[in-house]
Amino acid sequence: MITPISTTLTDDIQKKIDFKTKPIGSLGVLEKIALQISQIQNTLTPELNNPAVVVFAGDHGIVKNKPVSPYPQEVTQQMVLNFTQGGAAINVFCKQNSIDLYIVDAGVNGTFEYNEKLLNHKIADGTSDYSEGKAMSENECKAALEAGEKVIQKLHNQGTNIVGFGEMGIGNTSAASLLMSYFTNTPIEKCVGKGTGLDDNGVNTKGEILRTVFDLHKNDIQNPIDVLTSFGGFEIVMLCGAMLEAARLQMTILVDGFIVTSALLAAHAIDKNVLDYCIFSHTSGEQGHEKMLSYLNVKPILNLGMRLGEGSGVAVAYPIIKSAVNFLNEMATFESANVSEAE
Amino acid sequence: MITPISTTLTDDIQKKIDFKTKPIGSLGVLEKIALQISQIQNTLTPELNNPAVVVFAGDHGIVKNKPVSPYPQEVTQQMVLNFTQGGAAINVFCKQNSIDLYIVDAGVNGTFEYNEKLLNHKIADGTSDYSEGKAMSENECKAALEAGEKVIQKLHNQGTNIVGFGEMGIGNTSAASLLMSYFTNTPIEKCVGKGTGLDDNGVNTKGEILRTVFDLHKNDIQNPIDVLTSFGGFEIVMLCGAMLEAARLQMTILVDGFIVTSALLAAHAIDKNVLDYCIFSHTSGEQGHEKMLSYLNVKPILNLGMRLGEGSGVAVAYPIIKSAVNFLNEMATFESANVSEAE
Repeated sequence: MITPISTTLTDDIQKKIDFKTKPIGSLGVLEKIALQISQIQNTLTPELNNPAVVVFAGDHGIVKNKPVSPYPQEVTQQMVLNFTQGGAAINVFCKQNSIDLYIVDAGVNGTFEYNEKLLNHKIADGTSDYSEGKAMSENECKAALEAGEKVIQKLHNQGTNIVGFGEMGIGNTSAASLLMSYFTNTPIEKCVGKGTGLDDNGVNTKGEILRTVFDLHKNDIQNPIDVLTSFGGFEIVMLCGAMLEAARLQMTILVDGFIVTSALLAAHAIDKNVLDYCIFSHTSGEQGHEKMLSYLNVKPILNLGMRLGEGSGVAVAYPIIKSAVNFLNEMATFESANVSEAE
Repeated sequence: MITPISTTLTDDIQKKIDFKTKPIGSLGVLEKIALQISQIQNTLTPELNNPAVVVFAGDHGIVKNKPVSPYPQEVTQQMVLNFTQGGAAINVFCKQNSIDLYIVDAGVNGTFEYNEKLLNHKIADGTSDYSEGKAMSENECKAALEAGEKVIQKLHNQGTNIVGFGEMGIGNTSAASLLMSYFTNTPIEKCVGKGTGLDDNGVNTKGEILRTVFDLHKNDIQNPIDVLTSFGGFEIVMLCGAMLEAARLQMTILVDGFIVTSALLAAHAIDKNVLDYCIFSHTSGEQGHEKMLSYLNVKPILNLGMRLGEGSGVAVAYPIIKSAVNFLNEMATFESANVSEAE
């Protein structure tokens, strides 16, 4: 059970915001973020402690058999190695903004030397091809949800109270599109986009493939878990479990783009209160993301046409979240600064 | 004369962007910013050195005689003191993002103890009331333009190659609206907004007052300098001179909201090449700003409903500009990271 965020201090927080030396409301979205984080932490002096980004990585069986991505499956493993060597976009942005980065092998087709920043929660070497059957068993799904919870519990124990989510997995815009189609009741063709860079023909082919997949599974789906077992992937299920646990532990959740939001759709179907704890970092350039966001009735901080995944939107948006908390804690009031108020 | 930015390295810069371990174009606006700053610096390895924000402050004669702002004129002086004490929004955001903050007394009605972070370039104790005559003389205007240049030359000599601009001045949305009306050929009523927080009646009254002002001056205006002498303010003229000089010195210019953009409209009318050096930090919540931006055919980084001035949009957007430069300098290439490219 996720507790809805506390509103007991809402009036006091709003007063604190309004007494700062600025016209009422003039910090726009920053004021809303400051209010939300204060409510999440139920305090007038919120803190962002040990901020972390967790990137869940996993492979997708469909990629071996059907042309849903212009990149070969090996790239998932190669990019995880790139993460460990500090060469990916998410490394650069986390380093810049002093965010701890954790990579989780949720189900990559390949092995690694694991360490405290590269965690082994591998369920299998990629999901099964969902054009032939379910992506995973119910036991695998349960194990993935629990692994996501475990990762968050560890961060929480280390003092992290704000966590952003990213992902890596060649083919995972396909799984995300299938989730989107189911949860938002949108025809699969409208959920499919370019992913890492398909051309128009490629997008059409991807749409046709996923139409067949969706129709194969749709009559067997009764609940959110069925959606996850049908389509995967392991990284998406782990994201779902992690976000639910972060909300249970009253941490602030930073949502990235298309794939992370698809995992949130599943989490939201399981417990809608998870949304209270979510800040949406950016609108992805992947077509379909905007429809997910309007389904959830939320508006992200950034809209920069980014569509890279990895949690890159989260890491780039993080300083703005910090600005929201900082103005609340550090700005003078009209009284303390001897500034006249509006007449 | 402002030199247009160099395009000799454009192909090489674009290749460097495209060989990074990410799908082509997937960092969206960050890629455009990285390209622009590389072009401005004419290098494949751009740097952001000693980033600074300069806030020009000035008073407006109209405020004493007409109800164009809900705040009394004293607030300009009080807020400058607040800046020097570190209590304003711009202090908090500059501190967070390691940006040097300079305040310039361009023409505040009040005195200060000046120091190396609070510069004295006072032209007069506020402009004359433009509902009765010109806001300033041509000599005052020329002195203000030169003061803006001097401030930038000093920063340039100190090694700053990226500078953001802010302003403080009770009543300055009125001057900015008048400039906007003239330069974008938009009826003054459509250029007027809430400023620091007028209600609908207040906005209507402000529109009526400024209609009379505009009509009083319009037949005497022959060139951009006439616009500036007619409407002011000293902080806006100084901003205009500073932006022109920054572009001449091939520095990257960060543009804030409604008032700074109005000064840029004047600078643009004087030398359109100034735009090559400008990055637009945010779309202000002040109605009218969007029309200015579409007149200049530019799209800012952020759209957070902020309307505080002080350069606050610049300071909040700065880490995103840094992310653009950082990915270009720090990310691995497909080759260096042994990641397979798209098929």
